[in-house]
Amino acid sequence: MAFNLLKGKKGLIFGALNDMSIAWKVAEKAHEQGAEIVLTNAPFALRLGDTDKLAEACNSVVIPADATKIEDIENLIDKTMERFGGKFDFILHSIGMSPNVRKGITYDNLNYDYFLKTLDVSALSFHKILQVSRKKDALNDWGSVLALSYVAAQRTLYGYNDMADAKSLLESIARSFGYIYGREKKIRINTISQSPTPTTAGKGIMGLEDLMDFSNRMSPLGNATADECADYCIAMFSDLTKKITMQNIFHDGGFSSMGMSRRAMDVYSKNLDALEFKDVTHKFKK
Amino acid sequence: MAFNLLKGKKGLIFGALNDMSIAWKVAEKAHEQGAEIVLTNAPFALRLGDTDKLAEACNSVVIPADATKIEDIENLIDKTMERFGGKFDFILHSIGMSPNVRKGITYDNLNYDYFLKTLDVSALSFHKILQVSRKKDALNDWGSVLALSYVAAQRTLYGYNDMADAKSLLESIARSFGYIYGREKKIRINTISQSPTPTTAGKGIMGLEDLMDFSNRMSPLGNATADECADYCIAMFSDLTKKITMQNIFHDGGFSSMGMSRRAMDVYSKNLDALEFKDVTHKFKK
Amino acid sequence: MAFNLLKGKKGLIFGALNDMSIAWKVAEKAHEQGAEIVLTNAPFALRLGDTDKLAEACNSVVIPADATKIEDIENLIDKTMERFGGKFDFILHSIGMSPNVRKGITYDNLNYDYFLKTLDVSALSFHKILQVSRKKDALNDWGSVLALSYVAAQRTLYGYNDMADAKSLLESIARSFGYIYGREKKIRINTISQSPTPTTAGKGIMGLEDLMDFSNRMSPLGNATADECADYCIAMFSDLTKKITMQNIFHDGGFSSMGMSRRAMDVYSKNLDALEFKDVTHKFKK
Amino acid sequence: MAFNLLKGKKGLIFGALNDMSIAWKVAEKAHEQGAEIVLTNAPFALRLGDTDKLAEACNSVVIPADATKIEDIENLIDKTMERFGGKFDFILHSIGMSPNVRKGITYDNLNYDYFLKTLDVSALSFHKILQVSRKKDALNDWGSVLALSYVAAQRTLYGYNDMADAKSLLESIARSFGYIYGREKKIRINTISQSPTPTTAGKGIMGLEDLMDFSNRMSPLGNATADECADYCIAMFSDLTKKITMQNIFHDGGFSSMGMSRRAMDVYSKNLDALEFKDVTHKFKK
Repeated sequence: MAFNLLKGKKGLIFGALNDMSIAWKVAEKAHEQGAEIVLTNAPFALRLGDTDKLAEACNSVVIPADATKIEDIENLIDKTMERFGGKFDFILHSIGMSPNVRKGITYDNLNYDYFLKTLDVSALSFHKILQVSRKKDALNDWGSVLALSYVAAQRTLYGYNDMADAKSLLESIARSFGYIYGREKKIRINTISQSPTPTTAGKGIMGLEDLMDFSNRMSPLGNATADECADYCIAMFSDLTKKITMQNIFHDGGFSSMGMSRRAMDVYSKNLDALEFKDVTHKFKK
Repeated sequence: MAFNLLKGKKGLIFGALNDMSIAWKVAEKAHEQGAEIVLTNAPFALRLGDTDKLAEACNSVVIPADATKIEDIENLIDKTMERFGGKFDFILHSIGMSPNVRKGITYDNLNYDYFLKTLDVSALSFHKILQVSRKKDALNDWGSVLALSYVAAQRTLYGYNDMADAKSLLESIARSFGYIYGREKKIRINTISQSPTPTTAGKGIMGLEDLMDFSNRMSPLGNATADECADYCIAMFSDLTKKITMQNIFHDGGFSSMGMSRRAMDVYSKNLDALEFKDVTHKFKK
Repeated sequence: MAFNLLKGKKGLIFGALNDMSIAWKVAEKAHEQGAEIVLTNAPFALRLGDTDKLAEACNSVVIPADATKIEDIENLIDKTMERFGGKFDFILHSIGMSPNVRKGITYDNLNYDYFLKTLDVSALSFHKILQVSRKKDALNDWGSVLALSYVAAQRTLYGYNDMADAKSLLESIARSFGYIYGREKKIRINTISQSPTPTTAGKGIMGLEDLMDFSNRMSPLGNATADECADYCIAMFSDLTKKITMQNIFHDGGFSSMGMSRRAMDVYSKNLDALEFKDVTHKFKK
Repeated sequence: MAFNLLKGKKGLIFGALNDMSIAWKVAEKAHEQGAEIVLTNAPFALRLGDTDKLAEACNSVVIPADATKIEDIENLIDKTMERFGGKFDFILHSIGMSPNVRKGITYDNLNYDYFLKTLDVSALSFHKILQVSRKKDALNDWGSVLALSYVAAQRTLYGYNDMADAKSLLESIARSFGYIYGREKKIRINTISQSPTPTTAGKGIMGLEDLMDFSNRMSPLGNATADECADYCIAMFSDLTKKITMQNIFHDGGFSSMGMSRRAMDVYSKNLDALEFKDVTHKFKK
């Protein structure tokens, strides 16, 4: 689907680790739609992943940056503007990490240094990127900035741990900065709340595979894939979406608007019948 | 728990059919807390149910009224004011019915006369009661009006059919009229979104028992019972809640804020393992 | 911006009255993006407006239909399928009318026949179109259906009257039918909550011009125009948004996420200073 | 209104600085309703305020604790349990502070150490209190925990700065921990989103007085006072609300459900007419 939808646009993409990454797909598709892009990731992630291959395929470069460090971001924005010969048009933030999750620490036993680290990496990094970009006047008017979120920001899913709180914070930052960047430069800032996705990051979440099955059967259109998420990011970077800002948009096959689907209930009830009794507090009147 | 919380208050209660009804419990508890009450129900429901017994127990009377008919409501409000010797303080709306549900007509095959009837009985009746009450200046300043709703107003549950749409409309009417009655008379209007409850009305919903099990395991506090719902109604009629208005408050053991609980997932996944393959569109990278 | 984004797609557009109409702009842009379209409107609206001119410009036809009448919709879908030689891909519902608003009847004095008419025209019509389309299997898999809504569905704006309730109902129907059409045919159904727009319909709303000023100053990007709304509709009809369904998406320059902007507050406070005293219940401690 | 609603209950109250504080009113009313209470505040706040007087009036004690320090909270919970002779029933968290706000640093120029401090003081402190309480098994089954929030968690108000993000995080923590504490001990955790209130903390917010006027005229019941907020807290600590958890409840006179009131618009538009032109992007068709 090469429509040249982003022709003439330039963008900076955080978090493309490997070809499972949503950011990876966004980079490929942005390139395909005529955009010039710059890729960035944390130095350790660059060692782990294949970002260089992606850069080659997209006629792009990789500029390492730890998105929690202001000086790294400043250098990144400077280098990106050099590469582009001036301002650019879009940013994708696809960064999230919880040391508590990584170390298997549960939510009722959090390490608070780690909790702050989770928030710093997964949410404050977004503010830092925006604040530095604004100070350096790096973005063209009517630019578009996106961050990837998850429904855990609104609803508790066991095992998602402090990442749920980080996503809430991330979405709040999108609103707060969206006001400022909007009134000044007409730049829009939104988050996309994506279906659970089997990326390298996603795999850290406890019980993801079963959750993905549930989510898939609950969603009338099924879970959204990384590829489909990237398509929507392209739409959000294009000029077709200029007046959407400060929103969190669910790209999830309908999951967030479902209370119970018949497909999910079929699996659930089959097992219920096998249990000795259903766990209903109050029996029906005969 | 007799605190005299509603001492000196007077209220009108719609929809107490039998001792499974939430409205029935509200009547009992309002009486226990020192309120005077008047009961009402549609004539056919009065023949079906035991409302007279309740009236006796609560030292109350029953005034029949079809809540879709303005003249019935006018008569009801007049009689209620006579009984009370003037204005009163609270109203409970617990009315809902869908001919489509009753006749087993699915949502993709709705009869539109029935759909309008569903809306008229389950939602417009609330507006009519409010409009007549306001015209007759029937409510004291700082009065409190409640209607019972369900999470289907926000999220689709298969089988809940056009009642979902009726609950959305009901909640909207609460907001719209809450503005008007609030600015004029400081009267607050709210809806309570209650757990699925095995009332006579609830039993019409397809697959309610399994849904109640799921809902119960999803909710950290379990489903809320009719009795517990009535307790919260008492709090909302009392002077402790004078500044809450135009809200829909979830009284559901936490269900509405859950994405997935471990207890519900345990049932769900046990069965998954028995299926030949999990329905996950995209496999994890090995 | 001709990207051929809708090349090969076919769609049916309700509600293009004149060149102020959002539906008019959608028709023009869909045509520009390579789609084939059919236009429809109620017979009386066709007499009032310029839909024929639009049809000519878009190489389209106009098929009259009263969207509250099943037989009209059946005829419309049949004729549309004839014209297209089979199934089609998208539908825009841009229909709303309140006899109460038209006749200047306020929300505390509603005529209930009119209220039901408001709901029938502005919300049930959407269900009817979907139900008939589904019965006739008129839409291709992965089709996209949109209806236009307004933030009054969530928040009360004085003067918006029973149209607020109608929009709530409309959004609920989008969710309810989105589940059914999604699980069966992968068809997505969404509503777009658009800024106040000075269309012919919008002009009926009390105090619209002042409200638009407030809304504009509150929104960091300003009010969204009909033209911009049409751009977003195009994105939602394209294959870039295949996994978004059952959502209400705010296309409003940020209004819905604002509590108070400095620009709006500047106007507000300037006037406050001229008033004798500010209306703050509780004074600050000195 | 002494109903003995909290008779036999024991609770711990954070943040009662002086008689403008919401927590102060909650302490007074909890005492009046028959509860035993323990008061706590940060050491520096204790020097600044009158908490000792309150303790005397409520037959209570003050135990100093910095709610960001685990060892302080551990000591506090131990001492509270000693005082009560065992477990207790409710907690009020009324703590918030932003060094960025204090030092007049705007949101586009945040100091990130301060931002983390804002989050730690205003949100993580809530998690710490809950985590320590749970580890020490300090709360009785069916206990009730509240934190005070503000609508800035959902909508941007210029000048509220990083406190908006802190409130979002706070509400998320209430949900996340509400799930855990609910399934284990039936303890409910909620936040109350209160009208802007002229407390000592509130006065730090830029332009609060004008905002309070706007908020007051937008809200059909007017702004909720600290006193009224305390009433609602009492209801939430009582046994009347046992099944509400993981919710954020707006106690705001209706503000959060308003788009525009006539009273607020009257002030707003008066000034508009004096301006050279209204700021409406698109003029109406004549």
